[in-house]
Amino acid sequence: MKGNEPQHLTIVKVGGAVLEDEAELSAFLDLFAAMPGFKILVHGGGRAATKLSEKLKVESKMQEGRRITDNETLDIVTMVYGGLISKKTVAALQARNCNACGFTGADMNLVKACRRPVIDIDYGFVGDVTGVNHEAFTMLLNNGITPVIAPLTHDGNGQLLNTNADTMASAIAIAMAATYEVSLVFCFEKPGVLSDPAMDESVIQQLTPELYLTLREKGLIHSGMIPKIDNSFAALRQGVKQVIITGALALHLPAGTRITL
Amino acid sequence: MKGNEPQHLTIVKVGGAVLEDEAELSAFLDLFAAMPGFKILVHGGGRAATKLSEKLKVESKMQEGRRITDNETLDIVTMVYGGLISKKTVAALQARNCNACGFTGADMNLVKACRRPVIDIDYGFVGDVTGVNHEAFTMLLNNGITPVIAPLTHDGNGQLLNTNADTMASAIAIAMAATYEVSLVFCFEKPGVLSDPAMDESVIQQLTPELYLTLREKGLIHSGMIPKIDNSFAALRQGVKQVIITGALALHLPAGTRITL
Repeated sequence: MKGNEPQHLTIVKVGGAVLEDEAELSAFLDLFAAMPGFKILVHGGGRAATKLSEKLKVESKMQEGRRITDNETLDIVTMVYGGLISKKTVAALQARNCNACGFTGADMNLVKACRRPVIDIDYGFVGDVTGVNHEAFTMLLNNGITPVIAPLTHDGNGQLLNTNADTMASAIAIAMAATYEVSLVFCFEKPGVLSDPAMDESVIQQLTPELYLTLREKGLIHSGMIPKIDNSFAALRQGVKQVIITGALALHLPAGTRITL
Repeated sequence: MKGNEPQHLTIVKVGGAVLEDEAELSAFLDLFAAMPGFKILVHGGGRAATKLSEKLKVESKMQEGRRITDNETLDIVTMVYGGLISKKTVAALQARNCNACGFTGADMNLVKACRRPVIDIDYGFVGDVTGVNHEAFTMLLNNGITPVIAPLTHDGNGQLLNTNADTMASAIAIAMAATYEVSLVFCFEKPGVLSDPAMDESVIQQLTPELYLTLREKGLIHSGMIPKIDNSFAALRQGVKQVIITGALALHLPAGTRITL
């Protein structure tokens, strides 16, 4: 089917310490802006949100790495993710000739969610993704725009919801996989998934579900890496072509950990 | 030239006390969402920015009604205008079946500016508009999107700039007047331009440059109204079809003050 092959789309998630280090962020944005083809950037911002919370004397309540989001905290993450980080990133990408535009899930109804039901814990205004507006993303890409996505969704009834950025990147990747050949790249401060968290040289080149289970049982993969890897396998099972976990400054290199089924 | 007549576009600026009063804002957004045809919303947010500055113990320095914008203040207005107000407004409009999307001037390079040159006063990171991306606005409108514009621009070199919302609304109106029949509506907490600032019943129905000069000399029109009205005349002189200054809850009525040449 010549001429009808799916086009390539790269979805890059960047978070953690990278967003906090001005020089590293700038180098990362150089690499991202230079990437050819269709691309989407999803960013986190938890550390900056925690800093602003401290300044405003609002307690940051975390539960298993997830932020409990009351009304005050929702305002803080809306300001930090949707405003400060989003718009600074967009201005920096525009300066690099990348036609970026910052969005939350509420904008153009791009990513809809429902408030997480209370089972054991009430996470407050935290959203679980229920739908991705594939048509709107396609329209943006076809108009030469590079979406920059903040980890916020909405419920369609006027309520913004705090949403995990890794999950958001995976959900967008899965939705876009219906019509694009999607690569999902998780960039962070480490060079990949490590078999020894203390040694940057211990990058696992390929991580299968079997190896993951073994390393997890041994306690070598833990905390924040677990949802990231679970999201990766989920994405691959739902049509995403390739998932890589790598260092932010290795975006242009064949490096990091390739997640495979 | 049937079938080739310019389409109508309404640009609404809302600011001041309206954004601070939840019930009034909600009623205003009902009216805005119900407006037929192409539309753009430009919002302010100065009062909320001042509140956050107070909480963060950052001094709000004003000079002739304009905010002196140092680095810390720029972060605050980026969070408040580009994040909090923009995204809450977008979520509220989406709930009203209006396909809104929040932007700053940096997004899609929609509104470019240069940092205001220092003559008597250094306003800091304050931008004077130098260009409006008419094509991008047209693309958005043609895709059924209602842009919600925060009063922030960029210089194209990575610097965000704080920009007066009234000026931004006028600049967009003027740029779009090349291909649309543009109405520019300034909505605020008063029912229009008043000949007696103490009496809401004293709305001037039609304000010409002659009457404006007279009222200004008498001191009946002053402070914040002066740039608003100057912007209005400038817009009319540059092709904008109609300029109205009216109450936020009279958006659907033939009310307020019509500015004419």
